[in-house]
Amino acid sequence: MVNVGIIGGTGYTGVELIRLLANHPDVSLQVITSRSHAGTPVAEMFPNLRGRVKLAFTEPSVDSYKACDVVFFATPNATAMHQVESLLEAGIKVIDLAADFRLKDIAVWEQWYGTQHVSPSSVEQAVYGLPEMNRQQIKQAQLVANPGCYVTAVTLGLLPLLQHKLIDPTSIVADGKSGVSGAGRGANVGTLLSEASESVKDYAVAGHRHYPEIKQNLRQLDERADLVFVPHLMPMIRGIHATLYTDLIADGDQVQSLFEAYYADEPFVDLLPPGVQPQTRAVRGANVCQIGLQPLPESNNLVVMSVIDNLVKGAAGLAVQNMNLMMSLDETAGLEAIGMLP
Amino acid sequence: MVNVGIIGGTGYTGVELIRLLANHPDVSLQVITSRSHAGTPVAEMFPNLRGRVKLAFTEPSVDSYKACDVVFFATPNATAMHQVESLLEAGIKVIDLAADFRLKDIAVWEQWYGTQHVSPSSVEQAVYGLPEMNRQQIKQAQLVANPGCYVTAVTLGLLPLLQHKLIDPTSIVADGKSGVSGAGRGANVGTLLSEASESVKDYAVAGHRHYPEIKQNLRQLDERADLVFVPHLMPMIRGIHATLYTDLIADGDQVQSLFEAYYADEPFVDLLPPGVQPQTRAVRGANVCQIGLQPLPESNNLVVMSVIDNLVKGAAGLAVQNMNLMMSLDETAGLEAIGMLP
Amino acid sequence: MVNVGIIGGTGYTGVELIRLLANHPDVSLQVITSRSHAGTPVAEMFPNLRGRVKLAFTEPSVDSYKACDVVFFATPNATAMHQVESLLEAGIKVIDLAADFRLKDIAVWEQWYGTQHVSPSSVEQAVYGLPEMNRQQIKQAQLVANPGCYVTAVTLGLLPLLQHKLIDPTSIVADGKSGVSGAGRGANVGTLLSEASESVKDYAVAGHRHYPEIKQNLRQLDERADLVFVPHLMPMIRGIHATLYTDLIADGDQVQSLFEAYYADEPFVDLLPPGVQPQTRAVRGANVCQIGLQPLPESNNLVVMSVIDNLVKGAAGLAVQNMNLMMSLDETAGLEAIGMLP
Amino acid sequence: MVNVGIIGGTGYTGVELIRLLANHPDVSLQVITSRSHAGTPVAEMFPNLRGRVKLAFTEPSVDSYKACDVVFFATPNATAMHQVESLLEAGIKVIDLAADFRLKDIAVWEQWYGTQHVSPSSVEQAVYGLPEMNRQQIKQAQLVANPGCYVTAVTLGLLPLLQHKLIDPTSIVADGKSGVSGAGRGANVGTLLSEASESVKDYAVAGHRHYPEIKQNLRQLDERADLVFVPHLMPMIRGIHATLYTDLIADGDQVQSLFEAYYADEPFVDLLPPGVQPQTRAVRGANVCQIGLQPLPESNNLVVMSVIDNLVKGAAGLAVQNMNLMMSLDETAGLEAIGMLP
Repeated sequence: MVNVGIIGGTGYTGVELIRLLANHPDVSLQVITSRSHAGTPVAEMFPNLRGRVKLAFTEPSVDSYKACDVVFFATPNATAMHQVESLLEAGIKVIDLAADFRLKDIAVWEQWYGTQHVSPSSVEQAVYGLPEMNRQQIKQAQLVANPGCYVTAVTLGLLPLLQHKLIDPTSIVADGKSGVSGAGRGANVGTLLSEASESVKDYAVAGHRHYPEIKQNLRQLDERADLVFVPHLMPMIRGIHATLYTDLIADGDQVQSLFEAYYADEPFVDLLPPGVQPQTRAVRGANVCQIGLQPLPESNNLVVMSVIDNLVKGAAGLAVQNMNLMMSLDETAGLEAIGMLP
Repeated sequence: MVNVGIIGGTGYTGVELIRLLANHPDVSLQVITSRSHAGTPVAEMFPNLRGRVKLAFTEPSVDSYKACDVVFFATPNATAMHQVESLLEAGIKVIDLAADFRLKDIAVWEQWYGTQHVSPSSVEQAVYGLPEMNRQQIKQAQLVANPGCYVTAVTLGLLPLLQHKLIDPTSIVADGKSGVSGAGRGANVGTLLSEASESVKDYAVAGHRHYPEIKQNLRQLDERADLVFVPHLMPMIRGIHATLYTDLIADGDQVQSLFEAYYADEPFVDLLPPGVQPQTRAVRGANVCQIGLQPLPESNNLVVMSVIDNLVKGAAGLAVQNMNLMMSLDETAGLEAIGMLP
Repeated sequence: MVNVGIIGGTGYTGVELIRLLANHPDVSLQVITSRSHAGTPVAEMFPNLRGRVKLAFTEPSVDSYKACDVVFFATPNATAMHQVESLLEAGIKVIDLAADFRLKDIAVWEQWYGTQHVSPSSVEQAVYGLPEMNRQQIKQAQLVANPGCYVTAVTLGLLPLLQHKLIDPTSIVADGKSGVSGAGRGANVGTLLSEASESVKDYAVAGHRHYPEIKQNLRQLDERADLVFVPHLMPMIRGIHATLYTDLIADGDQVQSLFEAYYADEPFVDLLPPGVQPQTRAVRGANVCQIGLQPLPESNNLVVMSVIDNLVKGAAGLAVQNMNLMMSLDETAGLEAIGMLP
Repeated sequence: MVNVGIIGGTGYTGVELIRLLANHPDVSLQVITSRSHAGTPVAEMFPNLRGRVKLAFTEPSVDSYKACDVVFFATPNATAMHQVESLLEAGIKVIDLAADFRLKDIAVWEQWYGTQHVSPSSVEQAVYGLPEMNRQQIKQAQLVANPGCYVTAVTLGLLPLLQHKLIDPTSIVADGKSGVSGAGRGANVGTLLSEASESVKDYAVAGHRHYPEIKQNLRQLDERADLVFVPHLMPMIRGIHATLYTDLIADGDQVQSLFEAYYADEPFVDLLPPGVQPQTRAVRGANVCQIGLQPLPESNNLVVMSVIDNLVKGAAGLAVQNMNLMMSLDETAGLEAIGMLP
């Protein structure tokens, strides 16, 4: 059994991580910390966990993680960087679901996250946790930076195109659409049901933090890559839908088969047949990215549509997938849930 | 033109009141106050009002209401009682959308609202603002206590039954169902879309503040009246649906016609034909209470179903109706909007 | 491995049953029939099943079930009764998720379902599939009648009260609230998103088919039992919330502990602590009924609140639980999913 | 008073048109026809209209429109073209809310709508009913083709840019997002609440009928104009949000002021201040298009965001605006409703 700790389990990625790990056949949950809710039984805050998770939240302290093989940070940004070094020194593997170790360029990180980074060496050490790009490095990693939710949906939709140099890498448009749970469990007026239901809006149009992260991923395949990215808030709880507009520079006939080949061995990427359009509900609760392709012959455009559950393949499920790789478990262990439809 | 001021216009009853008054043919909005948002244009906070409301929020002060004929309090409970006397002394009529003047029994009020009442004499002076009960008194009133949203739906569904002594007044069950906007625009975790959407729950089962208010209303018609009242949170923005379970003690054959007669002259109560079941969307945005009746012959029960828009007939619309009566305007002025379906 | 067939897998109970069985450790799905969609891959209709269910829908025929140990009917009412005898004769166990075998009184069934029953002997043979009432009989059953969704929520909320004679059995009010998936996957105007979203309505107030079924259950414990039952349509996909209003005739102090004791050994009934109010999202996707109790001392009322996922504990999950019992499997096998919150 | 008839008032654009016209100060509703519901009171089908619309649906016949000055077609596509000539000959003005007269190129229309056009001369005579493009012609028109909902949102967002030659007209990407009411009131599985709620999907990616219509509009300003257009289904009832990605070819500094000037006199187009992002709920129920601009200096992109209520400014409200112009009424008459927020 892998002994696991979770730091900061009171948000939506936290409760989803607990839900997945509580049913993981090879995991024993040892400790879940929360400074503000220490002493509260986890299942009191999240009644879906009643009878399944006996732990109470405890005060965070390095000692409390001693029995752990892996610790997940489900904390706000700029939290894990303060504690990661002591955990790594204690021989504990770390997966950060926040953004502290995602961007390799410290200056860019500091610009987008508005604070000084206190552990640049950890950033250097960290492996970017997208198995479809970095599976072998993740297997060896002590520290994994779990990708952003939009980033996963967009990157998986573009990887084969950049790999095969099928599109103009400078003219990508990514229209992102996310359920409200992506904004977290904090008490904000903007995400009240009475504000966010029965409405659609864009946000962070001038610049979203996932933009530099997507660009970093794409530039590993083509250094000229750039994109326009606009996120939108959807009136629903879960799900990300990314519509990717690309200019084909090669014959589009092979796109479908190239994608199929590219992802043939991936357990959690599912290319849909031609003409089938992805919908977020098909992957609700599942650690799957479904992708559909639509070439538009007249305009030489290729539209790629990519859907995930932002809390699963976009956060907690992907983190478990990374843990499985790091701990030499079956990559799909604990991730067999089928999308909940309807 | 009636000159109107609004104290505390930043909540949902506030913005709804502004929306209604901005289109009212006989009203001139003079001042909208908010301590925390003084200086902010109202239409900046509520973009639906752009081009229609030019005012900015201003600091509350008695001076600012001098030009007003009527002032509405759209403030939290236990606010209006501190300011009402100076307004009344200045000859300004007052409508309180909160609960400060609803309960005639000060001790009961203090028990349910958890604080001392500072203006019992205002309570004595206040007229309870349900025109279907008190139209003549409202016309003469200087101070009107606007009813609670659940209270309006439940009371209108029961009035004819108690008036005609058709039911056992001691055995009423009222199952209330409200959209989330009833919980206000405050930033609370419990009313986030990710918490309140795709879920139903009850709340305040052990005792909701609208319970003593309903009871006060019913006891005006039958002093033995009592009920069990359980409110539930619905995964939607607007609307109240009340299902009222009553034991008939008289022949039920006449119930439909007695209701029809009782409400025949009411502009904003609509009795549905037999077999038609009310739905909240039919009254969304409209100052209407629709009521349906279903006798259950086998059990001698009569089920009454009553729907309103909690922000309109349950709050702001009813307040405008009261203002119309107090200012000798046409009772329906500014309240002609038809329910928005779909 | 238990070999399983599903008749009529194109509705919501059907797809949920497939989803659960596809992940069941002891089950091999052999055949899924649909007259109208024969030849279509199941995962083409339900994309959440892609990569997990390889079967295509096939034409229904007795031959096709020969390899099955158990066959589920996920068909409309009045379908299974035509085929059940030949399956039972072939030694195949049958679980009907529709209503054909639920009511022991054939005349009552024919009155509520509006057609003649063609297999009264099967009704006699059938065991009513609520393990919390009939576990031992289910273990021996060849034919199980899976309960209605409202029925399960209401019955589980009342069983301990009737068993211990704590309430007046003649004065029960059950206010039922169901997500729209309970109305099925048929194309009806009334369940369009534009009709059923952002609205609440009651339906079938004059008489819902689950009423005689609830009454049959309650009368096994007290032959005087009767209730008023009004179902309501909630603007959400999944979930049933039942609010049960009862008149205590005994001391209410022991109610909480009596419920706890009654359900102590039940794997799928969870009594909440005092003051905790059930919410449907806590059991979304889980085979769990969560129950909360609220005594109202002033009125001598006890309010019981009971929540389930109508498609899981209210249909497909309960059917799998019954199958586990019938096939001597672990009762919880394949039913370990934790509620998906948020 | 203008005497008005509506042909086909049983869909969502129909009921919205009735709702608007019932409150229009200068309109008398004379007749509402429906072949399938002749005899049914309109308010029986749409209970929000109770007490406000006394008409029953009647059989369609040319005679029944004799008293009308204007007739609206709220019928499916390819219906109005069969009847329009006889109405025009009778001196009745016609507004078609469907697509029969929108595309000037008959061959293109026949290709996209899959049937032969029976009245090409009416197409020639028809004025395209977007007042922001064609106000003077609409005032003189006998026949107006009311624009498609996406088309209105997209065209209004691009007009000033093409007029001032600020963008590359060949590289426009329009990502459209629509509430489910845009799909109509037909009973289809795909628009059930259980299918369309809590999910996002694209549709008609390979080609939506609004694409040639948008292109026709844009080409009036720049004959090279072309775009990629992908519509998406949003889990909500009302609202269209269009995100328009454009490549600036001129200095972007003046974009905000040029838009402001362009729409300064338009009663129903509202340019938001810099940094304010449109949301569909701000225009729910209102005949307003709100537009926001976001230049992205690094990429030389300009993102335009445009929101409307698909049933109001995107259909029925726009049709009333066109009627007002055709009948020399105040352009804003009957269209004063303020967006319903929350």
